[in-house]
Amino acid sequence: MLPSRSIAPVLMRAVDLIRKKRDSGEHSREEIDFLIAACTRGEIPDYQMAAWLMAAWLRGLSRAETAALTEAMLHSGEVVDFSELPARKVDKHSTGGVGDKTSLILAPIVAAGGLYVPMISGRGLGHTGGTLDKLESIPGFNVNLSLADFRRVLRECGMALIGQTAEIAPADKKIYALRDVTATVENLGLICASIMSKKLAEGIDALVLDVKTGSGAFIRQEEDSVRLAELMVDTGRRMGKKVVALITDMNQPLGRFAGHSVEVLESLEVLSGRGPADLRELSLELSAWMFFLGGRTPGVDEGRRLAEEMIASGKARDKFRECIRRQGGDARVVDEPDRLPRAAHRAQIPSPASGYLAATKCAQFGAALAVLGGGREKQEDSIDHAVGLEFHKRIGDRVAAGEALLTVHYNDQRRLAAAQELLADSCEIAAQPPREIPKLVKRLIGA
Amino acid sequence: MLPSRSIAPVLMRAVDLIRKKRDSGEHSREEIDFLIAACTRGEIPDYQMAAWLMAAWLRGLSRAETAALTEAMLHSGEVVDFSELPARKVDKHSTGGVGDKTSLILAPIVAAGGLYVPMISGRGLGHTGGTLDKLESIPGFNVNLSLADFRRVLRECGMALIGQTAEIAPADKKIYALRDVTATVENLGLICASIMSKKLAEGIDALVLDVKTGSGAFIRQEEDSVRLAELMVDTGRRMGKKVVALITDMNQPLGRFAGHSVEVLESLEVLSGRGPADLRELSLELSAWMFFLGGRTPGVDEGRRLAEEMIASGKARDKFRECIRRQGGDARVVDEPDRLPRAAHRAQIPSPASGYLAATKCAQFGAALAVLGGGREKQEDSIDHAVGLEFHKRIGDRVAAGEALLTVHYNDQRRLAAAQELLADSCEIAAQPPREIPKLVKRLIGA
Repeated sequence: MLPSRSIAPVLMRAVDLIRKKRDSGEHSREEIDFLIAACTRGEIPDYQMAAWLMAAWLRGLSRAETAALTEAMLHSGEVVDFSELPARKVDKHSTGGVGDKTSLILAPIVAAGGLYVPMISGRGLGHTGGTLDKLESIPGFNVNLSLADFRRVLRECGMALIGQTAEIAPADKKIYALRDVTATVENLGLICASIMSKKLAEGIDALVLDVKTGSGAFIRQEEDSVRLAELMVDTGRRMGKKVVALITDMNQPLGRFAGHSVEVLESLEVLSGRGPADLRELSLELSAWMFFLGGRTPGVDEGRRLAEEMIASGKARDKFRECIRRQGGDARVVDEPDRLPRAAHRAQIPSPASGYLAATKCAQFGAALAVLGGGREKQEDSIDHAVGLEFHKRIGDRVAAGEALLTVHYNDQRRLAAAQELLADSCEIAAQPPREIPKLVKRLIGA
Repeated sequence: MLPSRSIAPVLMRAVDLIRKKRDSGEHSREEIDFLIAACTRGEIPDYQMAAWLMAAWLRGLSRAETAALTEAMLHSGEVVDFSELPARKVDKHSTGGVGDKTSLILAPIVAAGGLYVPMISGRGLGHTGGTLDKLESIPGFNVNLSLADFRRVLRECGMALIGQTAEIAPADKKIYALRDVTATVENLGLICASIMSKKLAEGIDALVLDVKTGSGAFIRQEEDSVRLAELMVDTGRRMGKKVVALITDMNQPLGRFAGHSVEVLESLEVLSGRGPADLRELSLELSAWMFFLGGRTPGVDEGRRLAEEMIASGKARDKFRECIRRQGGDARVVDEPDRLPRAAHRAQIPSPASGYLAATKCAQFGAALAVLGGGREKQEDSIDHAVGLEFHKRIGDRVAAGEALLTVHYNDQRRLAAAQELLADSCEIAAQPPREIPKLVKRLIGA
């Protein structure tokens, strides 16, 4: 046989694309398409994808490469078409944080307000919680709908909350698993493509992004969060979608609770017109943008008023009840929250000193929750839906020595001890009040 | 199960080492040992090694890391112990070039001069030739000796020429295969560790390195060749070996022939006191350093005189004859070179203009040889030992339009056409003689 390199027609080869990215080259759309299509078909071995991912991590991806990657990953699987529905389809995506349960609140608000919310969510991994795990704390709630059932529930109810299916962006599924074990997760282009390919496969018209920043966020530096937000907005718009991003604070948990059933409970509080101010505020703000981008209201302010109305009238709460019922869950939890699983024991974490809560190591709360049994190391791990953390102080609050900073809701004594170790230094107590209280919504990108 | 991250004892994990190298960290000896041992045992999947290799390629490896990597790879397999032999064991390694056949000349010279040469060589890959392929053009010559037979031939004959066995540096074998398909070959630390781990496994006391530089070398820039040479000398010395490196020119082929049987033929010419000046000169220089480092002569000059004497007396030629016989080959080729395979046809490549040979695209000669059937794309490809290239001009030589620059020795008309295409622009003809003729031995490192 003649050596193929010299006289055979030139074919695209993975090794040449790896070399190009290694040497800081910019890939063409055709190159990205080849890479993702061949990877999805299993024609590029994992070791070549891993080498390319590390080269991309270290050399970076341009905006055009990121858009091409997003589109190639999106088209690696099924792209849902909801164009037959009579109103716009809108969704929200958060980059993840501790106590971030706004999905459970804004989806019923926006669906009650007349738009469709086809929400495909993830599970918790690492220190951040996942919407699916929270929903599964509701007895019977089924997040594993087929695409046909997803479509039916959405049409009938206006909202549907499911997990990623095998049909949606299979390239992302494969590549994400590889990034997780090759230290190539935290790259803006790769993160953007992963998030946006899945979200755009939902058949939405508009998307509101909640990009967290701070000690409990996946991305801690605000400038990095802004860059990711800009990249995602740009990528979504290149594909004809209405997109804005809010940069929001994650230097402390959102709301008073982190866990699963405790977060459902708190979401029901907000849907009932109560609940903590920060959670209510962010849920309303995100809902307002969804109404506006979905063309339901002429402006964001009107969107906010509509959201408030959906809560005050009880319509959002009704919508949540309906969604639970349609997805096989025990809808009685909405009115009888005691039906949600509760941890057997409580323990308090006292403040070591008197003063002011100055800062929190917010990611450690998530880690402690995982140790309690409420998080997973690997996707296959099972979790305890009843455990949780209850936060009694917010940054800037006064606290006396010995006063409870947190209450731990736990089921297992040994796990409690491990969690206590992580929680012991999670709160910084200062003699003086902090000069600045973190603003909840820090910036708006793309508006 | 409790999440292992938080409360299990801390174990070394490949993903953490990948992240460390990605973030420009320097690995400890323990980390390198873990990585290589676990990789050799198949406990680290290829995709993690590939990601680490790309991170190492882009971030670089320190001298200490390179030495640790070399040692870990060396100890991934058997390290031959020849300490029972009554004289020093010395070897030479070349980074590879076109027409580089010095191994076939210096091994008999040095063995005839009283030292042991336990030489484990490679096959040709890409545009550079391999000693094993050249040896296999001798009918019956067996390069696949067991370690026991290798030891026996070396003891009885003073030299033995074999290929890498499964026992020698298995980590290198695995990692090299991965580097080849992940665009992570050309990194000085990785190259050094790959070369030195194999050479040090031979049980040698001293090593002379021939680091090629120029248009036909694997590393084209002289400064990079010097850096690689310094790294290899440093690494070898850290492990207690006597090592020097010669930086030698590869802007044109070494000697008049490139191929397999034609190179054996040319080597026999030099061993008979004839042959082209450049090949003879470099073979003597490398032999001289081997005699000196092996403690056979008090200086390099004396080593050179001893090498010349081994040729003049016919002892080196006798030694080569003996080695061929002991390794199963037809030793009559030494005196009756017509017994070597010869290509059926000849074709000339004429000069397109009158003037001076100013430069060559030397790697293209190697590529043309591969296309003729004399090289391989993959390790499994079989090759034609009879084809070759004969070079009629050296840089600086005058040439008339239409005069032959090369003669192609070929067997297949279709392959000839492909080779002619590559050869057409391989020689640069200038109106003026080149200002500078490349010096054969450019620098000496570590002397």
